[in-house]
Amino acid sequence: MSTEERVRAALEERRAVVNEAIRDQLPVKRPERLYEASRYLLDAGGKRLRPTLLLLVAEALTDTHPRDESYRSFPDLGEEPVDVMSAAVSIEVIQSFTLIHDDIMDDDDLRRGVPAVHREYDVETAILAGDTLYSKAFECMLATDAPPEREVRALEELATTCTEICEGQAFDVDFERRRDVTTDEYLEMVELKTAVLYAAAAAIPAILLGADEATVDALHGYGIDIGRAFQIQDDVLDLTTPSETLGKQRGSDLIEGKQTVVTLHARDHGVDVDGLVATDDPGAVTEATIEDAVAKLEAAGSIDYARDLADELVASGKARLERLPDNEARALLCDIADYLVEREY
Amino acid sequence: MSTEERVRAALEERRAVVNEAIRDQLPVKRPERLYEASRYLLDAGGKRLRPTLLLLVAEALTDTHPRDESYRSFPDLGEEPVDVMSAAVSIEVIQSFTLIHDDIMDDDDLRRGVPAVHREYDVETAILAGDTLYSKAFECMLATDAPPEREVRALEELATTCTEICEGQAFDVDFERRRDVTTDEYLEMVELKTAVLYAAAAAIPAILLGADEATVDALHGYGIDIGRAFQIQDDVLDLTTPSETLGKQRGSDLIEGKQTVVTLHARDHGVDVDGLVATDDPGAVTEATIEDAVAKLEAAGSIDYARDLADELVASGKARLERLPDNEARALLCDIADYLVEREY
Repeated sequence: MSTEERVRAALEERRAVVNEAIRDQLPVKRPERLYEASRYLLDAGGKRLRPTLLLLVAEALTDTHPRDESYRSFPDLGEEPVDVMSAAVSIEVIQSFTLIHDDIMDDDDLRRGVPAVHREYDVETAILAGDTLYSKAFECMLATDAPPEREVRALEELATTCTEICEGQAFDVDFERRRDVTTDEYLEMVELKTAVLYAAAAAIPAILLGADEATVDALHGYGIDIGRAFQIQDDVLDLTTPSETLGKQRGSDLIEGKQTVVTLHARDHGVDVDGLVATDDPGAVTEATIEDAVAKLEAAGSIDYARDLADELVASGKARLERLPDNEARALLCDIADYLVEREY
Repeated sequence: MSTEERVRAALEERRAVVNEAIRDQLPVKRPERLYEASRYLLDAGGKRLRPTLLLLVAEALTDTHPRDESYRSFPDLGEEPVDVMSAAVSIEVIQSFTLIHDDIMDDDDLRRGVPAVHREYDVETAILAGDTLYSKAFECMLATDAPPEREVRALEELATTCTEICEGQAFDVDFERRRDVTTDEYLEMVELKTAVLYAAAAAIPAILLGADEATVDALHGYGIDIGRAFQIQDDVLDLTTPSETLGKQRGSDLIEGKQTVVTLHARDHGVDVDGLVATDDPGAVTEATIEDAVAKLEAAGSIDYARDLADELVASGKARLERLPDNEARALLCDIADYLVEREY
């Protein structure tokens, strides 16, 4: 099997049990409209990449390949069973809360092929659904039955992660108004907005299962590395993948004037980035304009720079996994890292 | 001194140190606009009733009257000092987050005499400021240095409280669309939207300081009772206090068609509540119309019913405090209960 096939199989194998756990821990109860809205995006699909990552770390650390139910009483590294599934649900619920609120802020209409929550319901309900998921995520993280000192550390990780995601979103909004953003600032924003949640997904099972400090740190670093690589690859794919494959206009970041690691590198190397696509009307932009813009970015070495950066991050992330026992789950965590930069959309 | 004077003095005595703690634990750092927006409402004032309640419970339980700094290393009931101030900040920060998001949902322009955060900044920033405060509140609750098993219980209380506040707000929104709300439903909504945060403020210091289960439960009950009494008294004051004293139009709940414990009782006793104030244009409503409406509500016994209910709740709340040592702080907790129904605005 290819990397992609192995990753897809690993996700597929765990999706049903993650979905069932989400339904269990977020039942639709009174007030129904609130809980329906809270579940709407979660029920609309999603790869469940972050919860799967969390479960794979738990499997790798304990050298286990569990069947469905045993995620609820996972053998820890000492004697006490831990409900790692509840932690996995917590991470997915945080992801869902941030998407709901981000879609309001960005006034995006669609998410996962269905209307955004504030479109399907209304802005008030969407704010409140996000707020409900926020505290529910903490409730889930408090339901792992891990020893209290580990629970506290996992909650600290969760709380600081949420604060950082908000900071990342604030930087992202701020950067739209600025034309002097540096690559370092951009990478900091990506780390906060995107990578810290991968880091939490990788580090928290290690905390809950009682892994040593160096292992927790290594897994946290793995999450940061692959989260950054994921976003950089997204920036590259926007330029290099045909619109039909992307499912959206190729070069949309250029058209919207969005700054990415590619455009920031190009600007630093003398390219008139704002002049690459002279209009902000997507309908008026031809494929030839995009081709031409991409050719200029390639000539400046900006696309290769971004690809190299993503490759380096993936290599760094994979190296950190060497602290884990050598088993199938660890191999899948390496595959996920590779997949994030090998994917074509 | 009168009850009101004693309560005001107790609040005044602790306000400066609470304010300083808020500034310490929520410094304005990068991204500045986000943290400025997060601090905006907190800096605009507020009585600090909930954090003061929390500090008074800590003082009452440990029979201490601390000077400022010692709230940070409060003597617990065993041997370990606990930072109860950090818990007090957490509760105030949650209150602030809910107000910021509620003002967006209700599209209210003013709060504490200054523009609401989404007016002073924008809706996007206000959503994000609320989200930041949300996780910061958990970070503060994780910074008390209490033993981990107590931290975990305090966090459970905090997380379920936040979920309940969201549920209460959802019921409140739902009730605006319904004309068949029962008094029990209304009181459940008030408990969720308002009273649970008082309950958390009263119960959490007992949890953190290691009080026994019955004391924690009693304090939780005290918070629920006085929180409900507070809201019911608000409903009464809207009808009985002159506009000049209220700082807003007397009878505004009637004009807006808002259902309260008073109007629900009246409807159950044959009053045509929707006909009391026939217009929804506040400018067109005369003082005589309001006088007449209040007279009808009085004749139906609805205002006395609400007053009696609030008085009963306050008496119940005070009785629960008998589990605490008999000291000045406990007397002030009784005073706060009395003050909530004796106040005239």
